[in-house]
Amino acid sequence: MNAIAAPGPAVRSAAAERLAGLATPAGALGRLGELGVWVAAAQGQCPPAPLDNVRLVIFAGDHGVAQHGVSAYPPAITPAMVRTFVLGKAGVSALAAAHGVHVRVLDIGVDDDLEGVPDDVRSHKVRRGSGALHVEDALSAEETTSALEAGRAVAREEIAAGAQLLLSGDMGIGNTTPASAMVAAALGLPAAEVTGRGTGVDDASLLHKQDVVQQALDRAGDRLADPVQTLQAVGSADLAATVGYLLEAAESGVPVLLDGLMSVACALTAERIAPGAAAWFAAGHRSTEPAQSLALEKLGLEPVLDLGLRLGEGSGAVAAVPVLRSAVALLRDVALLADLMPPA
Amino acid sequence: MNAIAAPGPAVRSAAAERLAGLATPAGALGRLGELGVWVAAAQGQCPPAPLDNVRLVIFAGDHGVAQHGVSAYPPAITPAMVRTFVLGKAGVSALAAAHGVHVRVLDIGVDDDLEGVPDDVRSHKVRRGSGALHVEDALSAEETTSALEAGRAVAREEIAAGAQLLLSGDMGIGNTTPASAMVAAALGLPAAEVTGRGTGVDDASLLHKQDVVQQALDRAGDRLADPVQTLQAVGSADLAATVGYLLEAAESGVPVLLDGLMSVACALTAERIAPGAAAWFAAGHRSTEPAQSLALEKLGLEPVLDLGLRLGEGSGAVAAVPVLRSAVALLRDVALLADLMPPA
Repeated sequence: MNAIAAPGPAVRSAAAERLAGLATPAGALGRLGELGVWVAAAQGQCPPAPLDNVRLVIFAGDHGVAQHGVSAYPPAITPAMVRTFVLGKAGVSALAAAHGVHVRVLDIGVDDDLEGVPDDVRSHKVRRGSGALHVEDALSAEETTSALEAGRAVAREEIAAGAQLLLSGDMGIGNTTPASAMVAAALGLPAAEVTGRGTGVDDASLLHKQDVVQQALDRAGDRLADPVQTLQAVGSADLAATVGYLLEAAESGVPVLLDGLMSVACALTAERIAPGAAAWFAAGHRSTEPAQSLALEKLGLEPVLDLGLRLGEGSGAVAAVPVLRSAVALLRDVALLADLMPPA
Repeated sequence: MNAIAAPGPAVRSAAAERLAGLATPAGALGRLGELGVWVAAAQGQCPPAPLDNVRLVIFAGDHGVAQHGVSAYPPAITPAMVRTFVLGKAGVSALAAAHGVHVRVLDIGVDDDLEGVPDDVRSHKVRRGSGALHVEDALSAEETTSALEAGRAVAREEIAAGAQLLLSGDMGIGNTTPASAMVAAALGLPAAEVTGRGTGVDDASLLHKQDVVQQALDRAGDRLADPVQTLQAVGSADLAATVGYLLEAAESGVPVLLDGLMSVACALTAERIAPGAAAWFAAGHRSTEPAQSLALEKLGLEPVLDLGLRLGEGSGAVAAVPVLRSAVALLRDVALLADLMPPA
């Protein structure tokens, strides 16, 4: 795939110049100044427009590996949580309502028929559950392609709905296991350095989870040098769809605010597939998973929030949306020194 | 003065219990969980009410010490910025508009008549400029009392207007010098450990500023053991008013979200005057000033944001308001596990 061009340098320069001209001390806006410049460059306009249309897609899927002691919760939670998103009663639902973020949940690979759930939730389903990555490929080649394309199609739909900023969220018991494997593959690290506690496994289960991730990495072997093969071997349908979604956003020039481990593992994989994609991404928050921090460092992204969140669902990204809005408001609405004190 | 009672333990327990019962993994909400419990306890109700009425008061004043090379900016900026707040074109104005925070600016000690500015901005004025603290007392005893009472009166007015959360902001060239001295007095530290660059002085000016702060501390001597004497000797009218405002909020049971150095130095002083006040305060952001971090540590407060902001004006507190709203939304609107999965 071709490399992706960065947001336009001309608008970036204009935004940096506007920032320097605001009636505030030089550098006093800190990260908010930098983020405002990034949003303006990604929008291709300075001053940037307010972020009124922010859209989160939650990619849901099950993981065969969840049957093998890597999670503190049973797989039945995944479809139950999809229903909770539909009801608007999950954690991210509350945050999104508070901050005016549109939420869409998609069943990409849930191991349940989700009867009675609205059809559009299942319109992009790839399969029921992904393979147990330590003993088999997560996906077939065809499913990998389908999942990537499903994510791209979803991004196109959200962009057509006017998205000024896209967020990716996740739901799926066991999903930190494939996400950790994807980060290990991208960075060439052993399982012990990337594997965390997910929703909260104990010490013994953490060691077991590390062992499972290492088995998956060993099984995949040289295929991990290729990012699409990585998704097929040690990823999952929901994570491959997330990668497609992020690629389509970057190629379409729509900025993305990343969430926790799943979102960032997919961003790292998207950057492997299409170098330059990461210039369209900002990091919403630092999760408690070690692989997320490692992947952010590789992507050169510094998270906006650090609140010890490990809820998933896109919650860290949604919680960070007001910080981007602060950045836009400052670059857009503060007086220019030249207007307050015109030269004599 | 009497100690101030902490937010009610019964509501705090109920809120912690509700948090534990949400349909989220245990501990997954991190700081947002803790902050939600704090807001509920401070409100005396669980679930907590949405923070719709959030009010910032900016206390403006000049400082004689600003004529002595401690700031990168001239004192004439103070009245110019008061006018910019009135126009709604300052940094904090943009943030407050983005996040629905009510802003009020008060001239407590600006060294200017502020002709043409609305009368209510000047309704609590104590004096024109405070004394140059390294060579004279900042205030007389009577002015100190007046300033404390002015801040209390303002808090009462804001509470009468329905404030669910109060914020304090500052404007005044040179104000990091008295604020640093107040922190040094409270913590028994030398000037070298508390003094920072403010709006951005160079290395030579930083050394000079440290020297000025140390002269002030040495001049005040034993009086620094008393917090009100500290305000009189090395504080200022605007900072004493801020202390009064914070004391009144805590005594009235209205929670406060603190801003940067000035706000936190005043919170520390309020805690010295009325032990227990700090239980009503949360820290909005970590500023770049060393004294702010030292004071937060002493108060046992961990800031919500860390974005390298050093704008003042209350900007860090306003930027953090959406994080408190996230915390309230989660504790209030997420389903309880018992409701999703009732016992058979």
